[in-house]
Amino acid sequence: MRQAGRYLPEYNATRAKAGSFLGLAKNPAYATEVTLQPLDRYPLDAAILFSDILTIPDAMGLGLRFTAGEGPSFDHPLRTEEAVRKLRVADLSQLQYVFDAVSEIRKALIQNGKQRVPLIGFSGSPWTLACYMIDGSGSDDFRHAKTMMFSRPDLLEHILEINVQSVAAYLIAQVKSGAQALMIFDTWGGLLPDVWYQRISLAAMQKVIQLLPKEHEGKKIPVIIFTKGGGLWLKDMAQIGSDVIALDWTLSLSRARKTLLEIGKPLALQGNLDPLVLFSDPEKIAQETTALLKDLSQAPAIKPGLHPLDGHIFNLGHGISQFTPPESVSILAKTVIEQSQALRK
Amino acid sequence: MRQAGRYLPEYNATRAKAGSFLGLAKNPAYATEVTLQPLDRYPLDAAILFSDILTIPDAMGLGLRFTAGEGPSFDHPLRTEEAVRKLRVADLSQLQYVFDAVSEIRKALIQNGKQRVPLIGFSGSPWTLACYMIDGSGSDDFRHAKTMMFSRPDLLEHILEINVQSVAAYLIAQVKSGAQALMIFDTWGGLLPDVWYQRISLAAMQKVIQLLPKEHEGKKIPVIIFTKGGGLWLKDMAQIGSDVIALDWTLSLSRARKTLLEIGKPLALQGNLDPLVLFSDPEKIAQETTALLKDLSQAPAIKPGLHPLDGHIFNLGHGISQFTPPESVSILAKTVIEQSQALRK
Repeated sequence: MRQAGRYLPEYNATRAKAGSFLGLAKNPAYATEVTLQPLDRYPLDAAILFSDILTIPDAMGLGLRFTAGEGPSFDHPLRTEEAVRKLRVADLSQLQYVFDAVSEIRKALIQNGKQRVPLIGFSGSPWTLACYMIDGSGSDDFRHAKTMMFSRPDLLEHILEINVQSVAAYLIAQVKSGAQALMIFDTWGGLLPDVWYQRISLAAMQKVIQLLPKEHEGKKIPVIIFTKGGGLWLKDMAQIGSDVIALDWTLSLSRARKTLLEIGKPLALQGNLDPLVLFSDPEKIAQETTALLKDLSQAPAIKPGLHPLDGHIFNLGHGISQFTPPESVSILAKTVIEQSQALRK
Repeated sequence: MRQAGRYLPEYNATRAKAGSFLGLAKNPAYATEVTLQPLDRYPLDAAILFSDILTIPDAMGLGLRFTAGEGPSFDHPLRTEEAVRKLRVADLSQLQYVFDAVSEIRKALIQNGKQRVPLIGFSGSPWTLACYMIDGSGSDDFRHAKTMMFSRPDLLEHILEINVQSVAAYLIAQVKSGAQALMIFDTWGGLLPDVWYQRISLAAMQKVIQLLPKEHEGKKIPVIIFTKGGGLWLKDMAQIGSDVIALDWTLSLSRARKTLLEIGKPLALQGNLDPLVLFSDPEKIAQETTALLKDLSQAPAIKPGLHPLDGHIFNLGHGISQFTPPESVSILAKTVIEQSQALRK
């Protein structure tokens, strides 16, 4: 969750060299550099591609720009039926910089002939991309996207279908370039009413997953889905074919594990420390991290013979704040390693 | 949910007369005027006091101001231990304008010797007030409040205890002035991690409810609690002694009803139409509103012999947008009345 990001001084130095956020994201050498920075600093188990979720609508010609202090915006948001009808599946050749970054990162991960850690690729979910494409920028309610959903569901479905095709093709190309697991970020699914979430965002993610290869060159490509604020829909999320469900901090891992076992869906869980814990002192960070692992340790295991911590990927529950002290992440990573070993004994 | 608000031209006219939002909220005559405006326009079943949730910290001396486009902020946020230690329970005499507004509204509600509709009083929850008091303004993560919670829980508990006393006294004074039901708005409870929500925000609301009188002058004073994003904690919310649980749109009323019946807590429900439905055309507004009522109609009733719609207060799931066309609310109110009658047949 923004593993490479503004909280790291070395990231800010690379970004300054690149001149802008988009300059950084669109240059495979810089993207590789920042993707690897957190691995040099912390004992992490995976790298995640550094990129932005809005690369796809940018490649559709919506004109992405980042304004200092205001975040991303599109020059051509989808506010009319005409604009929606003109939308086409993203041209993958416009996204070659992402795939180049993936291959370059995979190469850079080789150390002494061995790959240090696996590489996770990602995309925004079809609905989350639609939010930005319709509203044209970040928002606290994505009023235009939701208004289209309620008043012209046919237009939204058209956009979602194009996004499904685009996201699937984008993720497949990442796999072909070297991504070994995939994560779909549904940052704004939690804004939807019950029933609409399932019908709109979850259904579109399911279509994406159905289009993905189960394996690549004989190796399984696990898929992680994450809907911020999606805890209420855990049982529904478990039905769409992902291997892992990532959670924010509003649902405890033990409760999630129990719910999944009740419905016979022993999926792996990812998450879910509140990123704001990282603003505490070292003892409190260790204490909260330990509490999270202990909580899951007391839940049932996903299979007989396994430990309850098997099938858990430790992560934050959402993106790390740019104001986070980098040392806090050291304490976090150290605690996760020590405590998960201790709890398994 | 902002029943009187910027979507109404008559509200904007009164606000212009008052000169500012605070000028409006602090003048009982103007507050009365805007509280009654929606009743003259729509066939509503209750009035809700027009005020702001930040009146309490303002009365504590934190220096509330509203800046155009930026919303509320405090001149003296609680950012140091010294500031926290100096905090005192709100001086009710500083809030007399609220109690005067309540009495004046009650009087103004009398028409032909009868009270048109009951009057609901309200307060922010202790935790939600603490968010603004510590961060000093609105925020998307209330980083300072949550950091205090994780790193100095003793300081946060001190603030919460003062807020509990202040909120309870404030609500009791509203009841004595004429409020006939009370609503506690926990707008930011949904930012908390599981377990912390129960320990921090819910526990403080429970303490407030325990301090409230069960009745006033022989009449029951029902208490409604609302935690935005709190659907995951419905079973916990049902335990703190409120009469009604208000929900946002992420949890369907039928699912909430079933969950409450499962745990033997047949509380009334309030909510929960997505306010953005009101940006659709009349047919879609009627369609979504009907769907919501039908959904609850198919759930079990709270008691044998009652209809499933008994024990439901129709409401939006959160505040109405300032950009809402006023005619949309007419269609909404008309549909609720017609459809709830039709569904009861």
